[in-house]
Amino acid sequence: MQRATFRRTFHLLAMHWVLDATLKEPVMNAQLMHVVVESLPASRKVYERGRLHPQLRVPMREITLHESSGEPPLTVYDASGPYTDAQASIDISHGLPRTRQSWIEARGDVESYRGRTVQPLDNGLAAGGRAAPEFPLRTAPLRARAGTAVTQLAYARRGLITPEMEFVAIRENLRREAQAVRPGGEPWGAALPALVTPEFVRAEVAAGRAIIPANVNHPESEPMIIGRNFLVKINANIGNSAVSSSTAEEVDKMVWAIRWGADTVMDLSTGRNIHTIREWILRNAPVPIGTVPIYQALEKVGGVAEELSWEVFRDTLIEQAEQGVDYFTIHAGVRLGYIPLTVGRVTGIVSRGGSIMAKWCLAHHRESFLYEHFPEICEICRAYDVSFSLGDGLRPGSIADANDPAQFAELETLGELTRTAWAQDCQVMIEGPGHVPMHKIKANMDKQLATCGEAPFYTLGPLTTDIAPGYDHITSAIGAAMIGWYGTAMLCYVTPKEHLGLPDRNDVKTGVITYKIAAHAADLAKGHPGAQARDDALSRARFDFRWQDQFNLSLDPDTACAFHDATLPKEGHKLAHFCSMCGPKFCSMRISHEVRAEARAQGMQEMAARFRAGGGELYVPKG
Amino acid sequence: MQRATFRRTFHLLAMHWVLDATLKEPVMNAQLMHVVVESLPASRKVYERGRLHPQLRVPMREITLHESSGEPPLTVYDASGPYTDAQASIDISHGLPRTRQSWIEARGDVESYRGRTVQPLDNGLAAGGRAAPEFPLRTAPLRARAGTAVTQLAYARRGLITPEMEFVAIRENLRREAQAVRPGGEPWGAALPALVTPEFVRAEVAAGRAIIPANVNHPESEPMIIGRNFLVKINANIGNSAVSSSTAEEVDKMVWAIRWGADTVMDLSTGRNIHTIREWILRNAPVPIGTVPIYQALEKVGGVAEELSWEVFRDTLIEQAEQGVDYFTIHAGVRLGYIPLTVGRVTGIVSRGGSIMAKWCLAHHRESFLYEHFPEICEICRAYDVSFSLGDGLRPGSIADANDPAQFAELETLGELTRTAWAQDCQVMIEGPGHVPMHKIKANMDKQLATCGEAPFYTLGPLTTDIAPGYDHITSAIGAAMIGWYGTAMLCYVTPKEHLGLPDRNDVKTGVITYKIAAHAADLAKGHPGAQARDDALSRARFDFRWQDQFNLSLDPDTACAFHDATLPKEGHKLAHFCSMCGPKFCSMRISHEVRAEARAQGMQEMAARFRAGGGELYVPKG
Repeated sequence: MQRATFRRTFHLLAMHWVLDATLKEPVMNAQLMHVVVESLPASRKVYERGRLHPQLRVPMREITLHESSGEPPLTVYDASGPYTDAQASIDISHGLPRTRQSWIEARGDVESYRGRTVQPLDNGLAAGGRAAPEFPLRTAPLRARAGTAVTQLAYARRGLITPEMEFVAIRENLRREAQAVRPGGEPWGAALPALVTPEFVRAEVAAGRAIIPANVNHPESEPMIIGRNFLVKINANIGNSAVSSSTAEEVDKMVWAIRWGADTVMDLSTGRNIHTIREWILRNAPVPIGTVPIYQALEKVGGVAEELSWEVFRDTLIEQAEQGVDYFTIHAGVRLGYIPLTVGRVTGIVSRGGSIMAKWCLAHHRESFLYEHFPEICEICRAYDVSFSLGDGLRPGSIADANDPAQFAELETLGELTRTAWAQDCQVMIEGPGHVPMHKIKANMDKQLATCGEAPFYTLGPLTTDIAPGYDHITSAIGAAMIGWYGTAMLCYVTPKEHLGLPDRNDVKTGVITYKIAAHAADLAKGHPGAQARDDALSRARFDFRWQDQFNLSLDPDTACAFHDATLPKEGHKLAHFCSMCGPKFCSMRISHEVRAEARAQGMQEMAARFRAGGGELYVPKG
Repeated sequence: MQRATFRRTFHLLAMHWVLDATLKEPVMNAQLMHVVVESLPASRKVYERGRLHPQLRVPMREITLHESSGEPPLTVYDASGPYTDAQASIDISHGLPRTRQSWIEARGDVESYRGRTVQPLDNGLAAGGRAAPEFPLRTAPLRARAGTAVTQLAYARRGLITPEMEFVAIRENLRREAQAVRPGGEPWGAALPALVTPEFVRAEVAAGRAIIPANVNHPESEPMIIGRNFLVKINANIGNSAVSSSTAEEVDKMVWAIRWGADTVMDLSTGRNIHTIREWILRNAPVPIGTVPIYQALEKVGGVAEELSWEVFRDTLIEQAEQGVDYFTIHAGVRLGYIPLTVGRVTGIVSRGGSIMAKWCLAHHRESFLYEHFPEICEICRAYDVSFSLGDGLRPGSIADANDPAQFAELETLGELTRTAWAQDCQVMIEGPGHVPMHKIKANMDKQLATCGEAPFYTLGPLTTDIAPGYDHITSAIGAAMIGWYGTAMLCYVTPKEHLGLPDRNDVKTGVITYKIAAHAADLAKGHPGAQARDDALSRARFDFRWQDQFNLSLDPDTACAFHDATLPKEGHKLAHFCSMCGPKFCSMRISHEVRAEARAQGMQEMAARFRAGGGELYVPKG
């Protein structure tokens, strides 16, 4: 019954076409695509109401446990949107409900306007069979009325607790009022409250220590918060490339990524049809969507970095802000003067945006137009509430280049840009490396906090060694867990295909689950109140041989169940008090139950209490 | 051509049978089994000669790079034995060459004797179709002459530099004389020498800070060292269970595990045919083999823990020592008095050996016979040079139980047992947890070093969260990398099947590669001289678009190449100056080359030098 969930698959009939491939290769997947619309096993979507804003319905996932457990359902964070709600009706060609629209309009500080006309160049001149089908609906965009800032930071500074703020407060708590525990932990200076209040959210946003990426033109999004004093978040990158993949695949990947827990998704598309792909993604995304606008700008100038200009870039920002992109990666820290610092590196500049800007700077022998026009970029961002993700264009691409002068010179500039953006009420987070050996990770976090005034850090990994292409989700999960512990607010996933190719659906899932592990390990180590509830519930299920509960409580129930079934496939074995690892005779858990029963029979709980009371004298040497 | 390696597959015709399954399930794999005998891509086995002991041939793997690199071949550590030597002849039914036999005999302190007769009970009374075929050859075992200790520790204390010691010294250096670099790093008190000398090895072994597991009856083994001041090692567990798998599969898994880098292998078999499986493994293993003798002892008493006795256990130790087992896990730290401390735990006792002993103690209400007879166990170990791996029978099985009084009480006893074993010239390492959140990991290392006199630590993970069954190679790689950095000498792998089922061949490989990553990340962070050479070579290959070199230098060339080929399969693409992630226009590496060329043209190397010289004044604020 737990598995008899409601499965609905939506075919995107209109999206059945083959994307042009620069290399004239057959495209990898031309079949009909779909998105998965299905609850997770034994899970139910529940919604908590707001108090300040009673219209809020804050989504959470409730995992039901077997009645023998005597335990209530476990509530977990749920980034997956309506796609996992058995009650929701999904129509991809219509998009998700525009829930935030009324909140935004109620603030009375935006205006609807005609908006920029979509141009053929926005889609790389894709035409005919190469053109992706347009999203069927079009809504006039909103922007701030002249002279106003419509950012969550502006509201927070004015003392306003927006619906978005209360939403994330409720969301972060996961109903933990009832079960708040305060485990030990080493927060390295983070201040995790026992309970997140709307006022706490406001104060953190006002201080610039957290951001709520929420473009006024992405009303479909469910607010979430990125900050050191909240749950550690993860981002999944998707996006087609000039070489392969289609719109349908990218929409499917987005839904797939959030199903497994991606808190935000970056659309890094670089081929044709960029505008259209992004529109489909945004209209169907319940999570914030980030982009790197320079990618599209480069497409608009035919891929020739030298041809880039502030005008083309500005036009692209407006285009994307009107569509609803929630955060922009802007590589404004790659200054002309820093480029020579990369010449002696083993791997030069490995950030795409960074290398494009470096090339532009050198070609013109001029300071970066992103740096010079940064105040104007801020004006755009404050008019739509697009958050900054200040890109680390000079991040190290190898262990050899970690923490070098180029990297840290750029970080200083990112600190300066943070202050500029804050002065204009813009929300800011800072991107971080990259490839860093373990002993150099903490310095990155400490330096970022000091340099960027505690603006949230958003890191890619870091990868802790270069020697394992094909496994860089793992080389980087080590670094991600550590830097998350030290204070990074959001971890950008790395998939097994990193350095080798474009991630497919399986890679996206592997990357997301791996990063959920890293983020959760970080929450535990920081001593996040309530984070351990899921570990404890799962461990109790494990010790009680509630196999189905163990699967259902895990990050990936399907894989856990399939791995168990690989050696003990029968349903009856899910009631067995052993597994195939050890078999019945050697099952430590089974024996341990017998030990416990025996110990109790011998009155050992009392003995145990005495032992505990004995403290330092527990250890009785032999003889 | 690089891929045209010498492939030979040896079918174990005699081993074609189906093992009895307690559950009367079809056994998962009844087909003909084989072991892989093949060089790794672009790799050549090379041997370094000894100086003190000129007969030594110390194996290493040389990876040839493309001539365009202008770089010499890279030498890497090679645990894979003759199976990857194109010149070697392999006959599994004959076993590997008994290279160490002459070294052992030359010391003149062992005697050959008739040895214990193999009994039907040693194989769980397997008979007829259930009996595994015996290993065809039998050699009379060796043991120490009366009153002598034949352990590497005894020799080291006497000032003797054995061939084993010189072997590991040469092995650890990886020919780094020519390229020694001393990168930064945080060794947390480890003292990694620029170059490992035979005398350094002797001194470390004499101090108990390192062990060379090398039973006199396992002359097929290539010596290796486990200690904090050497490369971090990894162990792979294999072994059938009562539920599934066969001898043939286990031999194949052993060869497969060392192919990918396992430094030692533990045979944890628990079904029938234990003795025979172990014999096949030992005779074909170039790495030290560890066991948990209590598993076999329990089989001998029909799986009833209460029936265990010192006599049965002692007999099992002799049996295994005569076969050549290199290290024994002995759970002698699970004392009667500590059992009550586990009653309040979330997951009780999760060590199989620990739970078996706890059950025995409670049933008899007596102190553990392992603890009481520990000095006699030492006598056996010193007579064959079986190293101790003092088992952590009370390790935590969940985040909730980490670092609790039961765990640390046992650790104190392990410290006491270490001193007892050392007094008898026995080599010792200490097993460690388990499930530990990141912020509690370092305390484990520090406490182990202090309590156990710096005896090498050998940890399972630790897993840093409980919520990801199916991905516990990753949850644990995070903890393993960290504890390896802090000083753990050997990391016991965890496979994706942990908690769910018996690992198959793919799981073994995934576990080994994952742990090679963790161990190498730890070496880098400790500042191991030479560790970064492989990262740098691979990163240079990456930056130069030498795709084939990048694959060949990686831990798993097959997977790296397959992932690349998934999107760009043609051979020509391996010469392309881009990959499918970004396509040609957006390739940061390609652009970075252009940037470098341009920067050089503009005389920027000179500028860069000035920037560097400028130190703190690198950062020039705007305006």
